[in-house]
Amino acid sequence: MKARLKNELLQAHAWQERKTVVFMSDFGSSDGAVSAMHGVANAVSNHLRLSDLTHEIPQFNIWEASYRLMQAMTYWAAGTVFVCVVDPGVGSDRKSVVALTASGHLVVTPDNGTLTHIAEHVGILEVREISEGANRLAGSQRSYTFHGRDVYAYTGARLAASLVDFEQVGPPHSKPVKLKLEKGRLEGDTLVGAIDILDTRYGSLWTNISDEFLEEMGIPFGSMLRVTISKDERIVYGYPVKLCRGFTDVGKGEPLIYVNSLLNLGLALNQGSFASEYGIGTGEGWKITFSVVS
Amino acid sequence: MKARLKNELLQAHAWQERKTVVFMSDFGSSDGAVSAMHGVANAVSNHLRLSDLTHEIPQFNIWEASYRLMQAMTYWAAGTVFVCVVDPGVGSDRKSVVALTASGHLVVTPDNGTLTHIAEHVGILEVREISEGANRLAGSQRSYTFHGRDVYAYTGARLAASLVDFEQVGPPHSKPVKLKLEKGRLEGDTLVGAIDILDTRYGSLWTNISDEFLEEMGIPFGSMLRVTISKDERIVYGYPVKLCRGFTDVGKGEPLIYVNSLLNLGLALNQGSFASEYGIGTGEGWKITFSVVS
Amino acid sequence: MKARLKNELLQAHAWQERKTVVFMSDFGSSDGAVSAMHGVANAVSNHLRLSDLTHEIPQFNIWEASYRLMQAMTYWAAGTVFVCVVDPGVGSDRKSVVALTASGHLVVTPDNGTLTHIAEHVGILEVREISEGANRLAGSQRSYTFHGRDVYAYTGARLAASLVDFEQVGPPHSKPVKLKLEKGRLEGDTLVGAIDILDTRYGSLWTNISDEFLEEMGIPFGSMLRVTISKDERIVYGYPVKLCRGFTDVGKGEPLIYVNSLLNLGLALNQGSFASEYGIGTGEGWKITFSVVS
Repeated sequence: MKARLKNELLQAHAWQERKTVVFMSDFGSSDGAVSAMHGVANAVSNHLRLSDLTHEIPQFNIWEASYRLMQAMTYWAAGTVFVCVVDPGVGSDRKSVVALTASGHLVVTPDNGTLTHIAEHVGILEVREISEGANRLAGSQRSYTFHGRDVYAYTGARLAASLVDFEQVGPPHSKPVKLKLEKGRLEGDTLVGAIDILDTRYGSLWTNISDEFLEEMGIPFGSMLRVTISKDERIVYGYPVKLCRGFTDVGKGEPLIYVNSLLNLGLALNQGSFASEYGIGTGEGWKITFSVVS
Repeated sequence: MKARLKNELLQAHAWQERKTVVFMSDFGSSDGAVSAMHGVANAVSNHLRLSDLTHEIPQFNIWEASYRLMQAMTYWAAGTVFVCVVDPGVGSDRKSVVALTASGHLVVTPDNGTLTHIAEHVGILEVREISEGANRLAGSQRSYTFHGRDVYAYTGARLAASLVDFEQVGPPHSKPVKLKLEKGRLEGDTLVGAIDILDTRYGSLWTNISDEFLEEMGIPFGSMLRVTISKDERIVYGYPVKLCRGFTDVGKGEPLIYVNSLLNLGLALNQGSFASEYGIGTGEGWKITFSVVS
Repeated sequence: MKARLKNELLQAHAWQERKTVVFMSDFGSSDGAVSAMHGVANAVSNHLRLSDLTHEIPQFNIWEASYRLMQAMTYWAAGTVFVCVVDPGVGSDRKSVVALTASGHLVVTPDNGTLTHIAEHVGILEVREISEGANRLAGSQRSYTFHGRDVYAYTGARLAASLVDFEQVGPPHSKPVKLKLEKGRLEGDTLVGAIDILDTRYGSLWTNISDEFLEEMGIPFGSMLRVTISKDERIVYGYPVKLCRGFTDVGKGEPLIYVNSLLNLGLALNQGSFASEYGIGTGEGWKITFSVVS
């Protein structure tokens, strides 16, 4: 069945008229690196759509790259190829891989954890290791430090343009690297989870706790929930907060719980930054709980 | 006559071979939000050009969004669809609208003032309220906080791809929200107006005073004009400044009056920042005058 | 022979199905200026690919613009047109030009030094001065300060769309402005050169010393080289550093010499910033040497 699903996805990919390559990196946008990647892809095929997810991933932050990829990927048509280059291990023996996701997308990336959130929330059907000898921009053999351009952009564009097939890029790769992810869950009457990421522009906290738990627990919008945030067991914030449909359900500067655009619970200040107001961060050691105020 | 003009514009739109959707927001470019909007639009139609005006509008600054829209819109071909998402009221009862401008462009936006400068300087032929039930990405009904992706990008792309007509998106909307705008004008021998915006990169001031007044008053390039800038009636700057064709007509660090790329009067320091040198801001309360030095 | 080469390049340009215009400037991305340029180009022809090299060139920094252009240009297909607008002299009598490079690319730019690195490392076959009367967006005659939109974007798009030929844009222009460039070289047993640019995201130093000298001198990867960096003859850094294939050949925070993506010598701290750690800058006065540790 997996084989049939995989076949269908690869065929759907082949049918899409104009393929897209979406680029993501920690390169920033102030030098010529991103444009060189676009140029390489355009030279492979002039018919591709070339788009950018973001190049503002904090330097070497594989975890955020993994998260951002999940955030945007599924909104793109099946068959879209993602080229993800956050690569602190460039020049080491880390592998270069292509993943075929259960949603029919392809991800070209160093195998360093970028696939973590996709594996958890979308599913990965198969991973191939890129044979770098065959899948490399002509003339780039002496450059060891810009695989984003010489291997990933080049291979991503060739996959999108159907100049190479998924199965031709190299041998199967069995165990892609995964970062440790704590699941959002219900423990007794309390929702427990991690702070997945900060909505950096607004300073809201995005948890990995699905809004489906609210329905399961029978908690309607308008309820007050006690929110506790701790770092390494030390409590940083502990107050009752209202569960709202939108930011304007509370006054300017007031806190609210809301369902974010990924249908997970979020915590925000209306027209303010929750994260900087209370000094909240993300990743390992941070824990958030929600419980009904009795 | 308005009906005929409207008809012609909508037909011109239909004739354009490849339609463009131009996105603008206050989302910044460090997360996946903009890419999710592009993905939704691309999934609607793979033939659209997808472009970005800017996503660096200061958070919730509707006035600047309105201004930036005017600054770039008319340089795009008629029929281009603009998706403008600066939306502090997301989740409230503010309406979602599409405006047809006198220039033949379509603007998809929350109705919160984004149309102010366009209405004043370009003209709006008709506004429709988006029926969100029918014009919404499938499966997004439970998400209340990302209308930019679920309603605006989706509807903008469907308008651009002619999958929905302007008149089909919803009922007429009679009074779009407008912010207060002071007009540039001639009072006796003095030009009076507002500081519309800072050219943030260079720190120049852009007024809303047209250069046509200079011709009307017979003021040639090379003249000295007394410039007065006040904030809430308190004078912040008052010196004679030279009216120049270009920045190099004065020495490095010297002030000049010039005609900016929108053909309005601007005030700058050659290779410096007028705004930060003298602590000048924009919007309500700021006033600038120019009078001939006798 | 030059004439034949030029002819071949221009014909190759004409054959490319879909042409690309790549934009570069010091405008930043927070206002509508870049979008206005894209809009003008799109209105010239709806079939062009429109891409951005970067708009984050430091204000008025012609030298960096010249460098960034070289960094990305050759990865784009021959026939691609670059529109480069870092233009402190707008409004002065500086000329507007189009350069045809030996690589078959066209560069539309004010003649102020932007062509320096291209001339040195790629070669320029011919330069034409743009006749601004004929090559200017209709209706823009009264705007003196936004040639990027009114002349360069417009002319670049018309060249890419073959609506004007290279030789039709204006008369030959014999001596394009060049900035002073010190060559990378071998002096006795010591490699000498300049610090071309900082890799701003990672803080690595990129020199203009080719890795071919290493082969010539018989220096294998793994060797220790004494690195000396001076500013105006004053030594700022002087230590032995290892020549590595990749960043992970040394521990976190340790320095390494590597071959960068342009195949020149670079100097970095693994997962740190060499430039800020040691206060290193670029451009005139900075000198770097590498010699074998005896």
